[in-house]
Amino acid sequence: MKKFLNETENFVDEMLDGIYLAHPRQLTYVNDDKRCMVVTNRKSGKVGITTGGGSGHLPLFLGYVGDGMLDGAAVGGVFQSPSAEQMYEVTKAVDQGAGVLYIYGNYSGDIINFDMAAELADFDGIKVRQVVGNDDVASSVVGEEHKRRGVAGIFFVYKAAGAAAAEGLDLDEVTRLADKARLRTRTMGVALSSCIVPEIGHATFSIGEDEMEIGMGIHGENGISRKKLAPADAVVDEMMERIFAEQDYKSGDEVAVLVNGLGGTPKEELYILFRRVSQLFTERGVTAKHVWVGEYATSMEMAGASISVLHLDEELDRLIASPANTPFFCHTKI
Amino acid sequence: MKKFLNETENFVDEMLDGIYLAHPRQLTYVNDDKRCMVVTNRKSGKVGITTGGGSGHLPLFLGYVGDGMLDGAAVGGVFQSPSAEQMYEVTKAVDQGAGVLYIYGNYSGDIINFDMAAELADFDGIKVRQVVGNDDVASSVVGEEHKRRGVAGIFFVYKAAGAAAAEGLDLDEVTRLADKARLRTRTMGVALSSCIVPEIGHATFSIGEDEMEIGMGIHGENGISRKKLAPADAVVDEMMERIFAEQDYKSGDEVAVLVNGLGGTPKEELYILFRRVSQLFTERGVTAKHVWVGEYATSMEMAGASISVLHLDEELDRLIASPANTPFFCHTKI
Repeated sequence: MKKFLNETENFVDEMLDGIYLAHPRQLTYVNDDKRCMVVTNRKSGKVGITTGGGSGHLPLFLGYVGDGMLDGAAVGGVFQSPSAEQMYEVTKAVDQGAGVLYIYGNYSGDIINFDMAAELADFDGIKVRQVVGNDDVASSVVGEEHKRRGVAGIFFVYKAAGAAAAEGLDLDEVTRLADKARLRTRTMGVALSSCIVPEIGHATFSIGEDEMEIGMGIHGENGISRKKLAPADAVVDEMMERIFAEQDYKSGDEVAVLVNGLGGTPKEELYILFRRVSQLFTERGVTAKHVWVGEYATSMEMAGASISVLHLDEELDRLIASPANTPFFCHTKI
Repeated sequence: MKKFLNETENFVDEMLDGIYLAHPRQLTYVNDDKRCMVVTNRKSGKVGITTGGGSGHLPLFLGYVGDGMLDGAAVGGVFQSPSAEQMYEVTKAVDQGAGVLYIYGNYSGDIINFDMAAELADFDGIKVRQVVGNDDVASSVVGEEHKRRGVAGIFFVYKAAGAAAAEGLDLDEVTRLADKARLRTRTMGVALSSCIVPEIGHATFSIGEDEMEIGMGIHGENGISRKKLAPADAVVDEMMERIFAEQDYKSGDEVAVLVNGLGGTPKEELYILFRRVSQLFTERGVTAKHVWVGEYATSMEMAGASISVLHLDEELDRLIASPANTPFFCHTKI
């Protein structure tokens, strides 16, 4: 295991030390627990938005805590859910009287703990809504979308909800818009190599030197098919075929696209993938209006990529375009 | 070789296609050559700043072309210098009558070609100045700094010069400030694994499963020592010892710090490294006022990291703090 770390059991807490030391003006924590992260400047009267999930996916999840995005995040161990208590503490800290929206990925541990946190918050009179990201097309068939995992596409849900809350919309409206972004987002991923969880110390799975796995999850969950690594354009074509099959794009439509590296893949290659994504949309008369290419939801050092597409409409376009500023993500009007 | 690519000979040009397709409002090219990149909105009367160098280091070099940073970049093949002709074309395009500053790394191919481009520009009456980044402490001893390679610390030179030009300062003043940032920047790197150049198809060098190489260059140039991988804090201590030896930090001083991933190292680990960097400065009474942690100068998929430190003074602090916005880098006042 070639990693920069001290004792493996301190991996997450030392990472958090580093984050708070690097970004003291933007991030802090509550309840004397570094895993209960909140923004330093909570805005009075605004709907609070929190997330949570396992570590090992930076900038997911905590990297989106900041202006125009999220107000807090509960941080778990590597690939582990944070506790209900931690989520509850974050909830109390970010609530400004307008209620709190939870946005997180569709994993059983997170669901159980966020549900419990919502109940605890309810006792305190804090209104809580939940939107559970399930954008990973590979993880279940059409008709069983509720079984799908949440992966990189949750970025668009954060962005839309964060902008809506920053505009001063109320909890019902922020929730409606987050849910609309969720319903209109699809992601497909492909893995080329495994990640290594520090506490385990060896590769989560093995994959041949000439193989790729289409549809693999961000913790190494099984994908749809393992096959010989194909040229980049053919890989994109196969991934996009499944996204096109589920979204009814018409000529003149607009989309937001996120080509996301899983950790070990150079940005150069991600742009080669985007080139083909762009060609496929252009062929259909669809405009990729907002584009992000880089690392937005990783699996430690896993080589691979995912493509997320948000089918825009007028109000989603407005929310995706609006500015945001976190220590890990910055977006300004161009 | 597990890479997302089509034909290896098209790697750089398809990457550039992807970049122009992703960021059409910010980036374009001149002379009908995609390797001659310039910003779309060149500001009249402003000193132009250009860079250039080999591909495979994203976001270096072209990723810093944008508002508040650079006006153009000549793009070479993977780890290869662009041509003098390409640098000259970029120079002509960015010159707005106030002259052009070249900022690039200390590699012989780049020096030869930038010198030739400067001569061609001189025939056209374009004033050109040059600042050659040489921040890599590991690549030569004190007293022979002119032999040192330019690595991630060039980021600070771009940032300072870009801000100075955006303020409307003249060519001599922008050059003075860029050179001051250069002289006050030091970098140390450590590699854990090799990169793979697409056209070559196999690892540039081999390194044992439990080894690291302190001081390795970003093309795999030899470092200072190869040894058993140590705990993260010990690695940082060894790297920072050489930086501290060359910069006279006094209690009350301020620095800007860049903890840079070389491509394959997760952000989580970079923050563990920064934690220790921060501790070492705090022990000395020095404040890390501006901090960036992430990938700023890579070597394709190489695992490893570098630490760059800029010793601030009042005017460098002002320039480093000022806003910038490129497709790969965004900085706003917090």
